[in-house]
Amino acid sequence: MSDFSVPIDDRYFEDYVPGAKYEFGSVKVDEQRIIEFAEEFDPQSFHVDAEAAATGPFGGLIASGWHTTALMMRLFADHYLSKNASLGGPGVDELRWLAPVRPGDVLGLRVTVLETRRSESKPDRGLVRTLAEMVNQDDVVVLRLTVLNFLKTRS
Amino acid sequence: MSDFSVPIDDRYFEDYVPGAKYEFGSVKVDEQRIIEFAEEFDPQSFHVDAEAAATGPFGGLIASGWHTTALMMRLFADHYLSKNASLGGPGVDELRWLAPVRPGDVLGLRVTVLETRRSESKPDRGLVRTLAEMVNQDDVVVLRLTVLNFLKTRS
Repeated sequence: MSDFSVPIDDRYFEDYVPGAKYEFGSVKVDEQRIIEFAEEFDPQSFHVDAEAAATGPFGGLIASGWHTTALMMRLFADHYLSKNASLGGPGVDELRWLAPVRPGDVLGLRVTVLETRRSESKPDRGLVRTLAEMVNQDDVVVLRLTVLNFLKTRS
Repeated sequence: MSDFSVPIDDRYFEDYVPGAKYEFGSVKVDEQRIIEFAEEFDPQSFHVDAEAAATGPFGGLIASGWHTTALMMRLFADHYLSKNASLGGPGVDELRWLAPVRPGDVLGLRVTVLETRRSESKPDRGLVRTLAEMVNQDDVVVLRLTVLNFLKTRS
């Protein structure tokens, strides 16, 4: 585990070094926000109705998986992804919701730089592949995904 | 393209047939909601600041990719995923944001059942793999992902 020595406002493609690992931030998962998010985007009973959820497949209310990924993105944007060089992301490889996220859980982000590849056709940018994991207060990995990002090069 | 003849309140694993294709619903993407979602979850300048976005990599404000996936989930839950037999999803294989989503875009969901596999260890359930695409008003695919879902069997 190392510090990201380059400030987030001055981070370029070259600053993402394969093998580097970081841990960032923490976010507390709020029951009311679980329900509101799911009412808007994922209105399954085990995300929106605590009473129905109690007898459902998870034995209680759990966050929509898309809510958990959104919380991941917030920590990723606040602490890891360059604020000056991000050119958006083409997508994600293999996303897994590994354990339920429940009201009151506290989640942190763990990232590992997997691979970086400068573009041959557009040498002013490169692709960074990052393994991102959300880990709860019991050190259980609840979400794991491989995120792709395009970043401007410094030089 | 076929209709899903079984009502969403009475749909089980067996009702998802590999090769079946469906189109569902439509959602209009609202500028204010793009900004609010991104302020909460993905505060990159091209998602939250129309003025900065105008000179940014996308030439204007675009929705967070996680906002687009959440809108996909809403149509998926409203029209496709069983309301009685869903046991949650283990994850997603290969998600790609293929084109920017801008304020005023109208998105529809296109799904194809790719594969279904009854569990050997728990025969009361099975796994359904679905290709989901969000398509805009110009028939451009803006998001493509393969979603995995566990569903109860009818028998």
